[in-house]
Amino acid sequence: MAMTDAGMSAHTVTVDGERLWASLKELARIGAYEDAATGLTGVNRQSLTDADAAGRRLLIAWMEEAGLAVTVDEMGTIFGRREGLRPELAPVLVGSHIDTVGTAGAFDGCLGVLSGLETVRTLDALGIETQRPVVVAAFTEEEGVRFGTDMLGSAVAAGRLSLEYAYGLTDAQGLRLGDELERIGFKGTRPVRMDAPHAYVECHIEQGPVLLAEEFSVGVVTGVQAIAWQRVTLHGRAAHAGTTPTELRVDAGLAAAQIVVKVREMVDSGRYGRLRATVGHIATSPGLPSVVPDRAELTVDLRNPEDRRMEAAERDLAAFLETLPETQPGLRVETQRMARTTQVPFDEGIQDTMEKAAADLGHPVRRLMSGAGHDAQEMAAIAPAAMVFVRGQYDGISHNPREYSTPEDCAAGASVLASTVLRLAQELPEGSAAGPSAPESTGAPA
Amino acid sequence: MAMTDAGMSAHTVTVDGERLWASLKELARIGAYEDAATGLTGVNRQSLTDADAAGRRLLIAWMEEAGLAVTVDEMGTIFGRREGLRPELAPVLVGSHIDTVGTAGAFDGCLGVLSGLETVRTLDALGIETQRPVVVAAFTEEEGVRFGTDMLGSAVAAGRLSLEYAYGLTDAQGLRLGDELERIGFKGTRPVRMDAPHAYVECHIEQGPVLLAEEFSVGVVTGVQAIAWQRVTLHGRAAHAGTTPTELRVDAGLAAAQIVVKVREMVDSGRYGRLRATVGHIATSPGLPSVVPDRAELTVDLRNPEDRRMEAAERDLAAFLETLPETQPGLRVETQRMARTTQVPFDEGIQDTMEKAAADLGHPVRRLMSGAGHDAQEMAAIAPAAMVFVRGQYDGISHNPREYSTPEDCAAGASVLASTVLRLAQELPEGSAAGPSAPESTGAPA
Repeated sequence: MAMTDAGMSAHTVTVDGERLWASLKELARIGAYEDAATGLTGVNRQSLTDADAAGRRLLIAWMEEAGLAVTVDEMGTIFGRREGLRPELAPVLVGSHIDTVGTAGAFDGCLGVLSGLETVRTLDALGIETQRPVVVAAFTEEEGVRFGTDMLGSAVAAGRLSLEYAYGLTDAQGLRLGDELERIGFKGTRPVRMDAPHAYVECHIEQGPVLLAEEFSVGVVTGVQAIAWQRVTLHGRAAHAGTTPTELRVDAGLAAAQIVVKVREMVDSGRYGRLRATVGHIATSPGLPSVVPDRAELTVDLRNPEDRRMEAAERDLAAFLETLPETQPGLRVETQRMARTTQVPFDEGIQDTMEKAAADLGHPVRRLMSGAGHDAQEMAAIAPAAMVFVRGQYDGISHNPREYSTPEDCAAGASVLASTVLRLAQELPEGSAAGPSAPESTGAPA
Repeated sequence: MAMTDAGMSAHTVTVDGERLWASLKELARIGAYEDAATGLTGVNRQSLTDADAAGRRLLIAWMEEAGLAVTVDEMGTIFGRREGLRPELAPVLVGSHIDTVGTAGAFDGCLGVLSGLETVRTLDALGIETQRPVVVAAFTEEEGVRFGTDMLGSAVAAGRLSLEYAYGLTDAQGLRLGDELERIGFKGTRPVRMDAPHAYVECHIEQGPVLLAEEFSVGVVTGVQAIAWQRVTLHGRAAHAGTTPTELRVDAGLAAAQIVVKVREMVDSGRYGRLRATVGHIATSPGLPSVVPDRAELTVDLRNPEDRRMEAAERDLAAFLETLPETQPGLRVETQRMARTTQVPFDEGIQDTMEKAAADLGHPVRRLMSGAGHDAQEMAAIAPAAMVFVRGQYDGISHNPREYSTPEDCAAGASVLASTVLRLAQELPEGSAAGPSAPESTGAPA
């Protein structure tokens, strides 16, 4: 992207940390529940539930209070627009989501949306006008826990998934997403396919321990690592535990266990760079103490910031699976790809802008890869995008009521975001001077 | 036990193999179903279902046709008595069960009961009278698949479990065993606690591959091996698959897999004699592809013909479990004993009698340990007991519609049983001559 260097370091703003914190706390009261496992108050505000609708109404009230022009797209994603001096220029889009998993804390997603809101509140408070519009977005169903596909609102907005596909998704009760959108009154009319914004930025809690361990309040995210999910099904032969000699067994559960151990050995070998591997689901059938399992199923989640090393890990795991029937003749191994994304690198220019803004605010940053998926990776397909991470406490636990960032770290992340938005919103098209010019885009303004 | 050697080799009878086979086929039609996995007709005649009741009525009709006096005890176990010349002597009891697992073949249990029936039919056909009564028994709920406790009827009869315990057991639908017994009309009045018979013998399909591999039609069972079942629950820490560094994980699923692999290594080491080990059930929680499991559960089934080596295996496995938190600090390992039986040796005198009877019939026998539990191990607590095994086909597969023994092998096993019963039924108390004498037992005749 083009950068106008002049005056950048002057565009440094500090948000009102107490106001941001109060908003985070108020939003977290919607969908609050007492979590038995932790003894804490958690948040359960899954997408398109009544609680989500209440959260959306609160957000819209805050947006309108801040003078934003609110629109809702066909996927229910909410946009609040602060007009620029040059309304015809593509806006700076700042967003995240307010839907949560079933056992959430107050930060995942909400910190991003409310940092965006805090950005416009801060610009207003300081009387700063920007060349480009600034739009704050809250995307629908980022978590994917209710309708099964994550980053859904942003994926449809970016054109990776179709509106029809999204509307047709059903939850565990068989309720259709399209119907639920309508039921809660958030099936908007704004066309879902988004025109490319000038840039997309997102602030998010890290959901990992890196910033905590290395004592950084904030980090600049270099991209989202490649993710591969597969389901492995092992077909053995049911046999009596008491009577079947060991050498005659075709034990599907044993093969499953060998895969789990192998996958960890691959990680520990160091041969695949920063490979992470998780077997989250293991189940045997018939699952009786006295019957050798004839079937075992497991999932393998591989992540790697480098596509090349990811491919090497996938290749070597596949080769290992092929060797399993050698030690247990008759074993059949079936694999099914569930998900596969390549590495999504974020825009280096925005990363530099973020790092500079952070430095101007007195925050040294660490650059780090995101292990989790975010709306930013969908937006990266249509616009320069990047993210700022805020340090989490307690080893960075997330998707759990223990998820926590300090008020100071939240304010730091939001101030980096606001200062980045401000700098990006003052950028003009190459060869353009400040003042009216021809529009960059001709579609519906984002 | 005391043996009277005189005339033993003369007491050799051969059953009608075709009649036995026809009875096996007719009983297998009750509860028959089309098995999707094998494409074969299987049997599902679980205890105290309507199908079981129909099977019981057929058996009683056959017993009455053979002139047996039928009684039913408080647990629903059916007894058919052929009177002896000396009714006051303790009878020879020959039994097994006709209840089945949900995916059974025609042989498990049924072969034993119908071989007992065939024994009395053969004695009748040959006009042979015995000194002692011969009683054929079909024990209730041997499989334990419906009410959760196997060898139930024989365990209550032998006094290991109480009638109240058995009546209170419930099936998956919450139906009480006592109520189901009443519902199908098989809550009998005969006191369930059994007086010790003179001897207990049982014919059963091997449910294993030993006789097939070594080309014996029949085998003499030396005892039932020690069995230990435990449930191991691993408590780790749920964590995000994408963001949590490997060294910070407490992965309950990985620990479960390490146990499965370790248990197989113990078997392969040869250090525990003829140890068999099975992990039939493995499950992780929350079971999501992208979440490191915070909980995993598995069952470990250990079997060993030698108590001493069984104890060594249990001790070493427990020590291994204790080491797991060393590589994953924070992991918590919980174990729960589900079942534990020591080795049950069968009576050597009856084994010798069986082997001699088999030799007289032209069947060389192999002596072998039973890997599975049987009613005979309960009866062994109150009387000299032993079993004859009949070769199974297809690697000895059982609890499966593919379970199969040839008509010839079934006839061989039944003839060994009948000749053994005949010899045992002619045995008189030590110091007693043939002819009336004082009763050996004073309770209800078995």
